[in-house]
Amino acid sequence: MVNPFFKNYGPIKALEIYKILNLKPNNEIFTQNITDIKDLAHSKKNEITFFHSYKYKDLANKTEASFCITNSNLKKELPKSTLALEVDNVLLSTSKITSIFYPDSINDNFDNTVVNISKTKFRESVNFGQNVLIGENVSIGSNCKIGHNTIVEKNVLIGNDCSIGSNTIIKNTIVANRVKILDNCVIGKHGFGFFPLKNKNFRYPHIGIVVIEDNCEIGCGATIDRGSISNTVIGKNTFLDNQIHIAHNVKIGSNSIIAGQVGIAGSSVIGNNVKIGGQVGVSGHLKIGNNVEIGGGSGVIKNIPDNTKVMGYPARNLRNFLKDNK
Amino acid sequence: MVNPFFKNYGPIKALEIYKILNLKPNNEIFTQNITDIKDLAHSKKNEITFFHSYKYKDLANKTEASFCITNSNLKKELPKSTLALEVDNVLLSTSKITSIFYPDSINDNFDNTVVNISKTKFRESVNFGQNVLIGENVSIGSNCKIGHNTIVEKNVLIGNDCSIGSNTIIKNTIVANRVKILDNCVIGKHGFGFFPLKNKNFRYPHIGIVVIEDNCEIGCGATIDRGSISNTVIGKNTFLDNQIHIAHNVKIGSNSIIAGQVGIAGSSVIGNNVKIGGQVGVSGHLKIGNNVEIGGGSGVIKNIPDNTKVMGYPARNLRNFLKDNK
Amino acid sequence: MVNPFFKNYGPIKALEIYKILNLKPNNEIFTQNITDIKDLAHSKKNEITFFHSYKYKDLANKTEASFCITNSNLKKELPKSTLALEVDNVLLSTSKITSIFYPDSINDNFDNTVVNISKTKFRESVNFGQNVLIGENVSIGSNCKIGHNTIVEKNVLIGNDCSIGSNTIIKNTIVANRVKILDNCVIGKHGFGFFPLKNKNFRYPHIGIVVIEDNCEIGCGATIDRGSISNTVIGKNTFLDNQIHIAHNVKIGSNSIIAGQVGIAGSSVIGNNVKIGGQVGVSGHLKIGNNVEIGGGSGVIKNIPDNTKVMGYPARNLRNFLKDNK
Repeated sequence: MVNPFFKNYGPIKALEIYKILNLKPNNEIFTQNITDIKDLAHSKKNEITFFHSYKYKDLANKTEASFCITNSNLKKELPKSTLALEVDNVLLSTSKITSIFYPDSINDNFDNTVVNISKTKFRESVNFGQNVLIGENVSIGSNCKIGHNTIVEKNVLIGNDCSIGSNTIIKNTIVANRVKILDNCVIGKHGFGFFPLKNKNFRYPHIGIVVIEDNCEIGCGATIDRGSISNTVIGKNTFLDNQIHIAHNVKIGSNSIIAGQVGIAGSSVIGNNVKIGGQVGVSGHLKIGNNVEIGGGSGVIKNIPDNTKVMGYPARNLRNFLKDNK
Repeated sequence: MVNPFFKNYGPIKALEIYKILNLKPNNEIFTQNITDIKDLAHSKKNEITFFHSYKYKDLANKTEASFCITNSNLKKELPKSTLALEVDNVLLSTSKITSIFYPDSINDNFDNTVVNISKTKFRESVNFGQNVLIGENVSIGSNCKIGHNTIVEKNVLIGNDCSIGSNTIIKNTIVANRVKILDNCVIGKHGFGFFPLKNKNFRYPHIGIVVIEDNCEIGCGATIDRGSISNTVIGKNTFLDNQIHIAHNVKIGSNSIIAGQVGIAGSSVIGNNVKIGGQVGVSGHLKIGNNVEIGGGSGVIKNIPDNTKVMGYPARNLRNFLKDNK
Repeated sequence: MVNPFFKNYGPIKALEIYKILNLKPNNEIFTQNITDIKDLAHSKKNEITFFHSYKYKDLANKTEASFCITNSNLKKELPKSTLALEVDNVLLSTSKITSIFYPDSINDNFDNTVVNISKTKFRESVNFGQNVLIGENVSIGSNCKIGHNTIVEKNVLIGNDCSIGSNTIIKNTIVANRVKILDNCVIGKHGFGFFPLKNKNFRYPHIGIVVIEDNCEIGCGATIDRGSISNTVIGKNTFLDNQIHIAHNVKIGSNSIIAGQVGIAGSSVIGNNVKIGGQVGVSGHLKIGNNVEIGGGSGVIKNIPDNTKVMGYPARNLRNFLKDNK
C-alpha cells in the first residue's frame, strides 16, 4: 500500500478492531496494538492485512502480518504467526478497518483549508491566474503556471515546468515535470468504489493517489480518480485528449495516446506505446499489452496481448472486424 | 404539471391566447381569463390543456379543462365543457402558450441575482468555500458543505448533511438529505428540447425540476437537466459515477448504480436496483425494469423487463451476447 | 490559412529556416526573407508552403510560393519559381517552421493578461456575473450576458444578443449573433494534434480558430477545439446538447441537431440539417452529407451521402441495421 498523503491514525487497539467487527477477542490480544493496515505482501509484524480470495494463497502463506481479516475457508492458509479474524464479508470488514486507520481517505468533501496563492510562498515562484487556491502539503517546482479559478487542494506535489489550466481541481496527486493539465479537470478524487447496501451504500477508503509522470498532457474535462489501495498512474509522455475518464487504480504506460471521451474502468493496466481511438471503453481489471492499437468506438472486455490491433464491440482482431463489416 | 419554482404569470385573457395562435375567437370567450396551463389529467376549470395524440384519448374524454389546444381530428374526443382550440401543430402551439404563462422557464441565462454566501443567512449554518454564490429562493439544511466557486442559483432546496463540491452549478432542484454532489456538475438547467425551425429553433419551456433523493451520490462532471413538464428524478441511494448525462424528464429508481460516461436520453424511466456499466446509452422514452443489469458499452433501444441482464448494441440478452461473441 | 488572431513573427530569414531543417542553403537564398507560411493554394511570392502528398499535385503545380517544404519524390511537381526544401518528414518540418512564424499558437497556457470585466469598457454594455475575466483583443456586441467565473481569454469576437453561461472558457473564437453557450464549456483551445515522439511528443501549431455562427446553442461541458490550419466551424442555428466534443478543423453545417455526448474527430465535415443521436462517434476526415440522420450510439467510420439514415457500429443503412437486430 502506497501512502504518502493520508495520515495513519494508528496504532489502534486490537480490542477495538475486534469490537468493530463484532468478534470475540482472544485473551492474547487484550494488550496489543495494531499499527497499520496493508496488503498481504507488504504487511509486517503488528500490522493487520486481509485475505479474501484463494488466488492470493501464496501471498497469504508468507505474510508477516500479525493479524489478518479473512473467512473460515481461507484461514488455514495463514502462517501460525498470523491471527485470523474470521468474518463473513472480508472486503467490507477490511473497508471498515481501513477507515479507522485512514478516516481522511473516505470523504472527498471540498478542502476548506485552502488559501489564495497570493498568500503563500508560491506567489513569487509560480505564474498564476486569479482566484487560485492552494491547500496544505502542496509543493510546486520552478517555472510552473496555474490558471484562473484552479484549486490545488491538499496533498499535491508538482514538479518543474508544469502548466495547469483554469477551473481545474487537483488533490492527492504527484505531478512530475513538464506536465500539462488543461482546463476543467478533476484529478485525485476517490474512485467509484463502495459496497452497495440497501438504503445507504458503504464507501470504502481510497488511500491510493494519482501519479502523472514526465511530459504527459491531460486534456480538458478529464476525471482521473485516485487509487483505492494501489495508485492510479499515467506513464511518461502519454497524452490524453478531452473528456476522458480514468478510474481508480488504472495504470497507463508511457508514450501512449488516448483520444477523446475514452473511459477506462477500475484497475485496468494499459501498456506502453498504446493508441486508443475516440470513445473507446475498457472494462475493469483488464491487461492491455504494449504497442496495442484500439480502434475508435471499441468496447474492450478481454485482455489484449502485445502488438495487437483490435476494433469492435466487443473488441476483436482489427482485420476480422473490417472484413466482417465491409 | 409540477411547478414549485416557476412563477405563473396567469391569468391570461383568453382573447390573447387566441391571438397568439392566430385563431378567431368565439363570442363566448371575450371576457374569459385562463389561469394556468396543465396536462389533460391535472387541468381544472378556467385552465387550458393540450391533446396531441390519440393515445391520450381516455384522459381527453375526462379532462376538466375549460380550454384545450388540439387538432381537427382529435377535438371530437373532448367533453362539451372543454372548448377546442384547433391548430396545425399542437405541441408547438402548446409551447408558445406555456411560455406566456411561464416565461422564466425558457431561458437559462446565468442568474444575476446571486450574492456571495458570506452575505446571506447561510454564512453561519453552512461550511462553505471561497467564492460561493447563492441565488434567490434557496434553502439549505443543517450540516451542509458547499465547495469553492460553486453557484447555487435560484430555486434550490437542499436538505441536511449534504456535501456539494467545487465549481458546481445547481438551479431549480430539490436535494434531499445526505446527498453528495461532486465537482464540476451542472444540475437543473433546461433540457435539450425545442422545435427545429429553419433559421431559428423554437425552445419549449421547461417547467419541471430536478429531484435528488436521500443518500444519492452524483459524480464529477454530471449534467442533469430538469424536466420539461414532469420532473427529472434520481431515486434514493442511487450512485452516479463521473461524466454522466441525465436528460430531461428521466426518472431513476432507488439503489441503482450507474458507471462513468453513461447517457440517458429524455423521458426514460429506470427502475430500482439497476446496474448500468460504463458508457452505456439509453434511448429516450424507454422503460428499464427493476433489478436490470446493463453491460458496459451497451446501447439500449428497447424496453427491458424486470430482472434481466442485457448487453450489446443494440442491447439484448446477456447470455446470447456473450455466446455470439466468444 | 485563416489567421485573424495569431501574430505572424515573420519575416524570417530564409537562412534561418534552412538551418532549423538541417538543410544546406543555396547561395541564392542568403539574403532572402520569408514573410509567411500558408498552404499551397494561398501562398504567394516570398512565402513558404508545404507539399506532402501526391493528391495535392494540381495545387502544387500552380503554387505561387517562393519556397516549399516537400520531399525528393514530390519536388518535381513544383513550378520553377518555387524552391524545394527537401526533408524526410514534410509535416513535422512544416510544424517546426510554422511554430517559428506563429509561436503563440503552440501553447495553450492560461491567459495571464485577463482583467476583471468591471475594469473594462464592457462593464457598461454587458450583463455580467461575478469574477468574469476578459483578455486582450476581445470584442462583445450589444445585449450580451456572461455568467459567473467565465473567462473570455484573448482573441474573441462576440456578436449581439449572445448569452454565455458560467464557468466557461473561450479563446481564439468568433461568436456570431444570438448564440447561446452554456456552462462549463472550453472553446477555442488547440486540438489534440502532435507528432508522437519517444520521450516527448512534438505539438504542432494550431493557427486556426473556432467560428460559431448565428443562432447556435452549445450545451454544457462542450469542448470545441480550434483548427490547426483551417477553422473549426459550427453552422447557423445548429444546436449541441451537453458533453459534446468537437475536434479541430471540424465543420458542421446549419440547422443540425447533435445530441448528448457525441464526439466528432478531427477534420470531419458534417452537412446541413443533420441529426445525430446521443453518444455517436464520427471518425476523423469524413464527409457526412446534408439531411443525414445518425442513430444514437452509432460509430461512423465511412463517408455518408446526402439524405441517408444510418445506425450501428460501424454505421450502415438504418433499415438494414434494424432488420438485422429485430
